[in-house]
Amino acid sequence: MTINSTSSRRPLALAGWILLCFAAAAMGGLFMPGEWYGSLKKPSWNPPGWIFGPVWTALYTMMAVAAWLVWRQGGWARQRKPLLMFLGQLVLNALWTPLFFGLHRTGVAFAEIILLWLAIAWTITAFWHVHRAATWLLAPYLVWVSFAAVLNGTLWRLNP
Amino acid sequence: MTINSTSSRRPLALAGWILLCFAAAAMGGLFMPGEWYGSLKKPSWNPPGWIFGPVWTALYTMMAVAAWLVWRQGGWARQRKPLLMFLGQLVLNALWTPLFFGLHRTGVAFAEIILLWLAIAWTITAFWHVHRAATWLLAPYLVWVSFAAVLNGTLWRLNP
Repeated sequence: MTINSTSSRRPLALAGWILLCFAAAAMGGLFMPGEWYGSLKKPSWNPPGWIFGPVWTALYTMMAVAAWLVWRQGGWARQRKPLLMFLGQLVLNALWTPLFFGLHRTGVAFAEIILLWLAIAWTITAFWHVHRAATWLLAPYLVWVSFAAVLNGTLWRLNP
Repeated sequence: MTINSTSSRRPLALAGWILLCFAAAAMGGLFMPGEWYGSLKKPSWNPPGWIFGPVWTALYTMMAVAAWLVWRQGGWARQRKPLLMFLGQLVLNALWTPLFFGLHRTGVAFAEIILLWLAIAWTITAFWHVHRAATWLLAPYLVWVSFAAVLNGTLWRLNP
């Protein structure tokens, strides 16, 4: 009975994880790069602005699918720890944009993105023994955040 | 040995499926809605243009993950039929944009999107017994294409 009711909620849960991840994404949407960002000195390898929207949409989607795949292995009851780690990294992810684009605190944002990187790496190791595919779905996210951290650090250094 | 070498190619395969799906997406990017689309009579419930980019990015990502999850169940050797169906629907998906936005053939595009809908539904049933999660990952895609088909049909009717 319990198994059946959990099983019937599975597709709905996918929608739930997607909504949750895009809620974090929406936080980013509240703080768009404006005049301040335009005026910053940029490195030569600074990517064009249009690339961030599609990349983050794809990354948030894979993130949601990864969490859902882990959740399917017994739900919150059995996967409490890895799922809480996932939520932790999602909160850190949502916090970065207000720090950088909202408060213009590039140094604080850099420290925060290092924490985010560690939280993602930690979540990946926690997912490893639960669902291998979920781990790989987070790999592009870790790669992109590594790049974003280097970019954040460079912008901080170039604009003291 | 064979199992190990397949296993080591798994993360690379995720990248492959993502590239393949976004190649189909790029076909859409070649034919942007321009003056012609702007001049069409629209229904009152026509969605704002900015919604299509993020929605399709999320759908192509879920599509790629779904195909990858099925591929992981024994690769092309064992999943030839469902994967070929998947490729078939992807080709139909890529063809719609040149028909609609390239050639402005709204009626032909409508017939084609009905075929696409059937191909997706067929792929979903083929995925069902291979990997349940992969099936659910294609559900939002089928919902969106249903909506797109109704929109295409309405635009065809409103602009004879």
